[in-house]
Amino acid sequence: MAVTEVDAAVTGAVEDVARRARVAARELALASRARKDQALLAMADGLLEAGDLVLAENRIDLVTGRENGLAAGLLDRLELTVERIVGIAEALRELAGMADPVGEVVRGSALPNGLRLRQIRVPMGVVGMIYEARPNVTVDAAGLGLKSGNAVILRGGSAAERTNAAIIEPLRRAVAGAGLPADSVQTIDQYGREGVRALMRARGLVDLLVPRGGAGLIQAVVREAQVPVIETGVGNCHVYVDAAADQDKALGIVINSKVQRPSVCNAAETLLVDRSVAPEFLPRVLAALSDAGVKLHLGAGVGAFAPPGTAWDAADESDWAAEYLGLEMAVGLVDGLEGAIEHIQRYSSGHTEAICTEDLGRAQAFASRLDSAVIMINASTRFTDGGQFGLGAEIGISTQKLHARGPMGLAELTSTKWICLGDGQVRA
Amino acid sequence: MAVTEVDAAVTGAVEDVARRARVAARELALASRARKDQALLAMADGLLEAGDLVLAENRIDLVTGRENGLAAGLLDRLELTVERIVGIAEALRELAGMADPVGEVVRGSALPNGLRLRQIRVPMGVVGMIYEARPNVTVDAAGLGLKSGNAVILRGGSAAERTNAAIIEPLRRAVAGAGLPADSVQTIDQYGREGVRALMRARGLVDLLVPRGGAGLIQAVVREAQVPVIETGVGNCHVYVDAAADQDKALGIVINSKVQRPSVCNAAETLLVDRSVAPEFLPRVLAALSDAGVKLHLGAGVGAFAPPGTAWDAADESDWAAEYLGLEMAVGLVDGLEGAIEHIQRYSSGHTEAICTEDLGRAQAFASRLDSAVIMINASTRFTDGGQFGLGAEIGISTQKLHARGPMGLAELTSTKWICLGDGQVRA
Repeated sequence: MAVTEVDAAVTGAVEDVARRARVAARELALASRARKDQALLAMADGLLEAGDLVLAENRIDLVTGRENGLAAGLLDRLELTVERIVGIAEALRELAGMADPVGEVVRGSALPNGLRLRQIRVPMGVVGMIYEARPNVTVDAAGLGLKSGNAVILRGGSAAERTNAAIIEPLRRAVAGAGLPADSVQTIDQYGREGVRALMRARGLVDLLVPRGGAGLIQAVVREAQVPVIETGVGNCHVYVDAAADQDKALGIVINSKVQRPSVCNAAETLLVDRSVAPEFLPRVLAALSDAGVKLHLGAGVGAFAPPGTAWDAADESDWAAEYLGLEMAVGLVDGLEGAIEHIQRYSSGHTEAICTEDLGRAQAFASRLDSAVIMINASTRFTDGGQFGLGAEIGISTQKLHARGPMGLAELTSTKWICLGDGQVRA
Repeated sequence: MAVTEVDAAVTGAVEDVARRARVAARELALASRARKDQALLAMADGLLEAGDLVLAENRIDLVTGRENGLAAGLLDRLELTVERIVGIAEALRELAGMADPVGEVVRGSALPNGLRLRQIRVPMGVVGMIYEARPNVTVDAAGLGLKSGNAVILRGGSAAERTNAAIIEPLRRAVAGAGLPADSVQTIDQYGREGVRALMRARGLVDLLVPRGGAGLIQAVVREAQVPVIETGVGNCHVYVDAAADQDKALGIVINSKVQRPSVCNAAETLLVDRSVAPEFLPRVLAALSDAGVKLHLGAGVGAFAPPGTAWDAADESDWAAEYLGLEMAVGLVDGLEGAIEHIQRYSSGHTEAICTEDLGRAQAFASRLDSAVIMINASTRFTDGGQFGLGAEIGISTQKLHARGPMGLAELTSTKWICLGDGQVRA
């Protein structure tokens, strides 16, 4: 079979799913906030009620994942606990408490001829999510989609297939129980990889496709998709410690950025230190990273500052580009701000870069000259997160510039529409 | 040569253009509003000074176009006059008077931990424009690009190649004269169709590609492009005359929507009339359209209301889907609002739909249930235009939902970036 062909039966089935989603989306677009919030609360209740089954199915997925040699980071993301389920349900309740983005007036004016313009937020329509073995994304996507008036089509990865099926069923029941279409939330997990390819080609049926996962998945979707796509979340994030840094703060920021949850995209992967403060700062930070269990890949000249007994190897070109998603870090020396900017421009994935400095001019130059979604000045890269930013749960972190950039919450799942009210105006 | 291969020399040349654009874009992104406005005013002056040459080259393009059998609508768009050049230069001056979108704070907040977030507008970077034989788009794109801090790469269609070359040269000189990089404005016209294909594949070098022209061009770009694309301007726009319409206003709106400038995308192509007011309204509107020289394609039952002597033929399926871009109109009867919505949902390209009614409920239902970029209530479809909306000159009218929808002005040519200012915050 040629690489661009897709199994016809699967294509037909996925297109049917998408058509049902379109029908649901039309109804959902007109639903009141009250009804949508009622559905979200019912979804939270339904998820908790189904908790035992979800955990049992999750345990089976975990066992299978271990047998299949799934990486520790992936297993961490896949694993559910009672506490995590309660947290996920809580996120749905928080969404119910948030303002409805649909109908929000973004801009408006009255033209000289009396024509009244309003630009309002409207749902995208049908949103597809392709992600890897993260059951919390299943719930977040369903909840964010519903609140923003979008029907979602989910493909959650074979490693989480049983968990996701156990989650989606009660969510659909809850949506229907609140008087909204059950097809607001659908999965195509049962159609496997061919189903993903059919979804990527469903032009005119899918308004937005969000791939969320490793670089390979995202690049494949961007390359193959014939529907609008937003690239998310490949995070080769940098922390730059400037000569004018408060080194105590910098130490805390580096450790937090790397260690607090290394398996996610907003964890830092590379530390850059101004050569002039290396003798003072590097021994402390390398010792702290090493104590925290971080495997160190050290650039030219850095090893000389490693405390005796610290394990490390020499960083090569691939380390500067790597998204480790684990307890590993590349550490390099740079010649001041210019060196840091040059390095980051070369290797960054455009996610989050942090500078530690007390110098206003350098902080501003770092923020304005680096072309990444988020710039942190004296704060951990780990704050790049829809929940932390107060956007509600997030559907992903966009690393592209079109439509949305950085954490994507409710507003980022909407489009706009102009409504122009006249009383007979014609153009001269 | 396989359909997906692109000539290597052309690819290399276009990639060089794109790399120069990236370098220019980095400088342009940091340019002050004062300097950009100075460049825009110089561009206006430069264009006027080059006016005689531009007109002479335009006349050659027009002669060639006529020899090659270019359609009347295309020739109309291609033709420049002194008056049009003055108008185009004036548009550049107006851009200089508009607020700079770059740096605008879109949202912001202080988190409980003291971290201060600002989401600010930043340029997209490198914007490619692929369009057909409209020299005014060359100037608008260069001006909008410069004001919004983007470097533009233009491909203006072979039919306008001489005109565009004569325009771009003084624009580049003006930009350089103002101390900004000349490569902020570049053309790839000299590389022909292969150049377009190379541009569509320049992943990582082009941040946004805007095709503007006929449906064929736009679909080809959407299908082939590997860089982010915004679909623009295919306009199968409808005017629906409701039972509760003020028929005098409706008559004016229908005629204006169809006749005032039929060659552009916001002209109406289909008129739908509620069956209940057909006997009263149709004879008037058909006579007026016929008098204005509009070729009529009439749906079932409409012909009976055509005044004696009116020329018409029977509308077939293709008429309902057609974007005539000329003095032709399809006219159909519908059963009230539901019938109109059903018809428009089936055939619309999602550009602009107008309703003529004095009934509030039906106006609201039309506006909320139709999924098009712009809804006009008792106003001509011809108002869907960046200039008319007060956005400054427009780069195109987006008919997609991602990033921008409707007329695209300065703000639509920007992305955003989050800048987060802390004093040592780490995530708990």
